[in-house]
Amino acid sequence: MVKKESKEVKEKDGKSQEFKITPWEVKGEIDYEKLVKEFGVSKIDNKLLERIKKHTGELHPMLRRGLFFAHRDLNWLLDEYEKGNKFFLYTGRAPSGLIHIGHIFVWEFTKWLQDKFDVELWFQFPNEEKFLFKDISYEKVQEYLKDNMLDVIALGFDEKKTHFLIDTKHANLMYPEACKVAKKITFSMVKSSFGFDNEANIGEIFYTAMQAVPAFLPSVLKGKKIPCLIPHAVDQDPHFRLTRDILPKLGHYKPASIQCSFIPPLTGIAGKMDSSKEGAIFMTDSPEEVETKIKKYAFSGGQPTIAEHRQKGGNPDIDVSFQYLKMFFEPDDKKLQKIHDDYKSGKLLTSELKEILIEKINAFLKEHQKRRGQAEKQIEKFVLKD
Amino acid sequence: MVKKESKEVKEKDGKSQEFKITPWEVKGEIDYEKLVKEFGVSKIDNKLLERIKKHTGELHPMLRRGLFFAHRDLNWLLDEYEKGNKFFLYTGRAPSGLIHIGHIFVWEFTKWLQDKFDVELWFQFPNEEKFLFKDISYEKVQEYLKDNMLDVIALGFDEKKTHFLIDTKHANLMYPEACKVAKKITFSMVKSSFGFDNEANIGEIFYTAMQAVPAFLPSVLKGKKIPCLIPHAVDQDPHFRLTRDILPKLGHYKPASIQCSFIPPLTGIAGKMDSSKEGAIFMTDSPEEVETKIKKYAFSGGQPTIAEHRQKGGNPDIDVSFQYLKMFFEPDDKKLQKIHDDYKSGKLLTSELKEILIEKINAFLKEHQKRRGQAEKQIEKFVLKD
Repeated sequence: MVKKESKEVKEKDGKSQEFKITPWEVKGEIDYEKLVKEFGVSKIDNKLLERIKKHTGELHPMLRRGLFFAHRDLNWLLDEYEKGNKFFLYTGRAPSGLIHIGHIFVWEFTKWLQDKFDVELWFQFPNEEKFLFKDISYEKVQEYLKDNMLDVIALGFDEKKTHFLIDTKHANLMYPEACKVAKKITFSMVKSSFGFDNEANIGEIFYTAMQAVPAFLPSVLKGKKIPCLIPHAVDQDPHFRLTRDILPKLGHYKPASIQCSFIPPLTGIAGKMDSSKEGAIFMTDSPEEVETKIKKYAFSGGQPTIAEHRQKGGNPDIDVSFQYLKMFFEPDDKKLQKIHDDYKSGKLLTSELKEILIEKINAFLKEHQKRRGQAEKQIEKFVLKD
Repeated sequence: MVKKESKEVKEKDGKSQEFKITPWEVKGEIDYEKLVKEFGVSKIDNKLLERIKKHTGELHPMLRRGLFFAHRDLNWLLDEYEKGNKFFLYTGRAPSGLIHIGHIFVWEFTKWLQDKFDVELWFQFPNEEKFLFKDISYEKVQEYLKDNMLDVIALGFDEKKTHFLIDTKHANLMYPEACKVAKKITFSMVKSSFGFDNEANIGEIFYTAMQAVPAFLPSVLKGKKIPCLIPHAVDQDPHFRLTRDILPKLGHYKPASIQCSFIPPLTGIAGKMDSSKEGAIFMTDSPEEVETKIKKYAFSGGQPTIAEHRQKGGNPDIDVSFQYLKMFFEPDDKKLQKIHDDYKSGKLLTSELKEILIEKINAFLKEHQKRRGQAEKQIEKFVLKD
């Protein structure tokens, strides 16, 4: 049972605004400036962007548009890389439902990093996590595990350089290493990191040790210290803060990280997209479902009437459709700028903006679903041989 | 860090006497009557002994002499057995040092049960436990794991009906099941069962879930509910009390248990034999080492001088040599009675009593060490195929 207290961090319009972030819950409108300070992460500045650009040739839209906004030790990681000490990537997915578009942003970015830096990716599927933390059966999680792997494969990761780690299947590799981590973490530490109380179950309490393992398992298996870069949404930072404290004590590098803000739900720019919220767009949705959901639920920054919209214009900053285009679905900066300006001036109506997004998402999902249909026979190639 | 408070349970000679029992520490002179009440176990009475005898033909000395003195649900287990629903045995060893004679009492008794009831034995080697709970390296524990397996094999278990479960090697089988147990156990529960405080490490906290698994893993693997009998020393009861609470919630039987008192250290009848205490007799000790240790350390119930001993006689109840003979090394009741009477009358001197024990132990160790020398090539046959 996670009972982290909400943090009151923001006064706005004379009204106190709260947000809440744990690896299991994100609520409210996030003040990222405050979060950076509280978590102690570093902001990604122009200097760092230029340094990345030297290696990648171009910057991914999620970087140049600030979706990935924070990091830990990325300069150190690039120092090592420039010395010829390649890193590996580590990200993951805790199965508990269908994959929706909110999930794939980090993975799309991870794929870009894999391609640009030509590095291995260790993709963890902690297929016990949600069972331990949520009201979901073990068996149901295993069904989602298989389903979720199909979506990850469909994103096009390089099968030769990508290894799926499944907590229970690879427990003979992972559990011994998790114990070494666990010996260094007290209940007090997880209590303060995650807000557990005494009614937390002992699986939840232990779990963070399993999440730490992929950050150094490749080093153990290969018998040499390899730097690790974890692309993740900022809500996972408490796990990796603990991991970073412990790993040097076990003779491993601290993992570096690159962190993104949350993908908002269709219904508004606060919080993060969540399968339990109305109107998440799933990777298996039909074009009609996508159209219906966006038309029905996508929060609009437009005006109540067309006349008023033409006159006053819309607000792209709070318009979820525009934000999705900005975050991922419209990589072309010029086109995005035009949509932005037209919407703001009132030239582009909300219904027209939504049409643009619907078309983009459906084109993306069409390709995705085609690859997804082929993915099942590839699973074996991705799952680490144990 | 285990911080169970000592329990003040006994007033004797006007002085308060304390004993302390956790799965990791046994201190003081145990009041077993009190323990039975506190732990809520049942005493093994004559009626139950007769019932066992119907199946075994004779009673093992450890039963008829009361070393195994308590149980949980043994009548239910025998009901099931008599209906044709065979049980399996579960016991184990957490490697952290060499095997000494204090360890083998439970296993000798377990072997007797295996032979008499013709049942499977699942022998757990939790090769993370002592690493998590004690100041010992992971690597050192693994060295002891291999060493300890040799001694267990040398005891002569039926290789066709005995399966070694090694927590980390079989984690892919055990960890998922442990998670199902763990979800039902809160920190409050382990806190009150084991006396953990907030500085307990999260591996210690999780560990009891791993120890629960062998009590039902055979049922999972075979796809049917099989009763389980756990022979163990009474200090492990807190683990299995928790296990018994949880397993029915997962659709499994509560494991039954048969529990023995502690094998005292050479130095006196309080506490239990422990590798860290002076003068434990190891399975690999030479005849000379055994002789030296018993002569030097075995606590005597005799009198300070021969003359006084002849006159007043010795006290077999507090004489460790006599207790070892009674507990295991002299299975013949008549011979034991004679030793008892002769010692009590003063006819048998402490030095003579010690000679008897030395001879018995050395004969036992000679055979054991011969089998131990052959055991390495058998390991593979005992370790469960995963």
